[in-house]
Amino acid sequence: MRLAVRQLLADARRAGHLGSGVVAVACSGGADSLALAAAARQVTRRPGLAVHGLVVDHGLQPGSAEVAGWAADQLRQLGLDRVDVLTVAVTGPGGLEAAARRARYAALRAALPAPDALVLLGHTLDDQAETVLLGLGRGSGPRSIAGMRALDAPWARPLLGVTRAQTGAACAALGLTPWTDPHNLDARFTRVRLRTEVLPLLDEVLQGGVAGALARTAAQLREDCDTLDGLADQLFQRVCRPAGEGTGGVGGVPGVGELDAEQLGREPAALRRRVLRRWLLAAGVPELTDTQLRRVDALVGEWRGQGGVWLPSSLVTRRVRGRLRIDRTES
Amino acid sequence: MRLAVRQLLADARRAGHLGSGVVAVACSGGADSLALAAAARQVTRRPGLAVHGLVVDHGLQPGSAEVAGWAADQLRQLGLDRVDVLTVAVTGPGGLEAAARRARYAALRAALPAPDALVLLGHTLDDQAETVLLGLGRGSGPRSIAGMRALDAPWARPLLGVTRAQTGAACAALGLTPWTDPHNLDARFTRVRLRTEVLPLLDEVLQGGVAGALARTAAQLREDCDTLDGLADQLFQRVCRPAGEGTGGVGGVPGVGELDAEQLGREPAALRRRVLRRWLLAAGVPELTDTQLRRVDALVGEWRGQGGVWLPSSLVTRRVRGRLRIDRTES
Repeated sequence: MRLAVRQLLADARRAGHLGSGVVAVACSGGADSLALAAAARQVTRRPGLAVHGLVVDHGLQPGSAEVAGWAADQLRQLGLDRVDVLTVAVTGPGGLEAAARRARYAALRAALPAPDALVLLGHTLDDQAETVLLGLGRGSGPRSIAGMRALDAPWARPLLGVTRAQTGAACAALGLTPWTDPHNLDARFTRVRLRTEVLPLLDEVLQGGVAGALARTAAQLREDCDTLDGLADQLFQRVCRPAGEGTGGVGGVPGVGELDAEQLGREPAALRRRVLRRWLLAAGVPELTDTQLRRVDALVGEWRGQGGVWLPSSLVTRRVRGRLRIDRTES
Repeated sequence: MRLAVRQLLADARRAGHLGSGVVAVACSGGADSLALAAAARQVTRRPGLAVHGLVVDHGLQPGSAEVAGWAADQLRQLGLDRVDVLTVAVTGPGGLEAAARRARYAALRAALPAPDALVLLGHTLDDQAETVLLGLGRGSGPRSIAGMRALDAPWARPLLGVTRAQTGAACAALGLTPWTDPHNLDARFTRVRLRTEVLPLLDEVLQGGVAGALARTAAQLREDCDTLDGLADQLFQRVCRPAGEGTGGVGGVPGVGELDAEQLGREPAALRRRVLRRWLLAAGVPELTDTQLRRVDALVGEWRGQGGVWLPSSLVTRRVRGRLRIDRTES
């Protein structure tokens, strides 16, 4: 575990982070983040990096302040340079899990000790496996099953290759007493059921190693997605033209260019669709189903003079004289 | 279902298949392939395409010849132009499922009625979901979770968007009596447990639609993989040099070129690793773990003068004067 944290800190320095000599660790008091904080303290003594502990109190359960205080005490005993409890208000749309997550990340970001500091998060290989399975079950595409990134400033996840069994063992070895969040056992949460029911069954049926396999696949998918996104960005620059030039441009969405459909049509599907998705979202399409995207793509790849494709927010995409354009319709 | 078959046949014609006016349908007697044969007969009347039915008798169960004969009878009653029962011997390494699969595909390929004909296979959306989950659990990378292709000549799978519930309903509507393979209920088979235990649980936990979500993700991954593979092929041509030119070339593997490490190092990871994998497999590395591939990639992306990377089959990859070369070691 220490090796994993040391490796990630080295990668982060190479990527230009941590120059101010301070790193933060987010800690819930659970085994993963407690083991992470201990490892972070151990490996930062030599390079002389200060470690700040950040404990978020979501205020969602009676006694949450005590749990937070107790986690903070353990961090102080580990010898962290500074420990703060951040009290947040969980509000807003999208269910309790999503709202708590939003509040937590906002508070951690605000508590960042320096602009180039990072917040270490205790996500493990098991969390990554759950994330992949969740993304897969939702069918929201390769990006969502590519899972979490190890370095995604200001967030850093050194334990994505470490199992939950290992963090538990590390706490035991260090004499730390992790806190078990009752939410982590509450079968009303999808993630909990994936963890306690689906993954164990899948592991049994496939004869072991599923969490590692999911994490490995996620890492490769992330590389694939990053590469394709980068290539699509370059392609977008090449095929995007200022709106109106040559096509009239009446009724077009302000600030949104047009796409050269013929040039785009010579590109492979995975790049073409990424360019189209980016262009449509920039034009203000709130969300885009796979079917809508394929219909727009047909204007490029299966052009036979068909009419426009109607999209949410009263937008319509048409092909006019070899260019794709997007207009606001009269509603 | 007829729409799906018609669509696939149209795609196949556009891709240059079926010019000889004949298509084959592989049929086990089960609901999926029986419904497929019926749909194929219905949609081929108008374009005047002949339909051959191919029934494989694996000889693995007592009475398999009767089942095959019965399936063949139903195909004849559907009005197929010709029906053959192919008797195969299931032998060779890798477990019963794998050996049966190998024998089946070889027999179907040999029975292809014309060089540009296709064999329609009854794989459904549910089969696709199982394939994706199986590949995911094995961690064998994006390609394996990209699932099966609709058109992969001589194979064609028109029903990848159709559920098993739909094929069952189609058989009932047509008065066909599908045969239920006892293997399909035998919990010793991994795929059967995925189908009967894992997928229903995942569907319950994620509140439905999992098979569709998996199939949708697979389709997008296939596009991503195809695009990256195509780009990697082009890159390989650009960075591969004849062996020996400039580096001596003593001990090199015959017929295998060297790679320009500096040029390769400027490319994104997903393309770099695909080029390296292709190069190593061509040099005779029998199989390649992710760890080995990453170690070879470090010679390109994290070069600090390190030594060679040892690979199976007594092969070693080294970086010499800006070139990657592969040599056979003395063993």
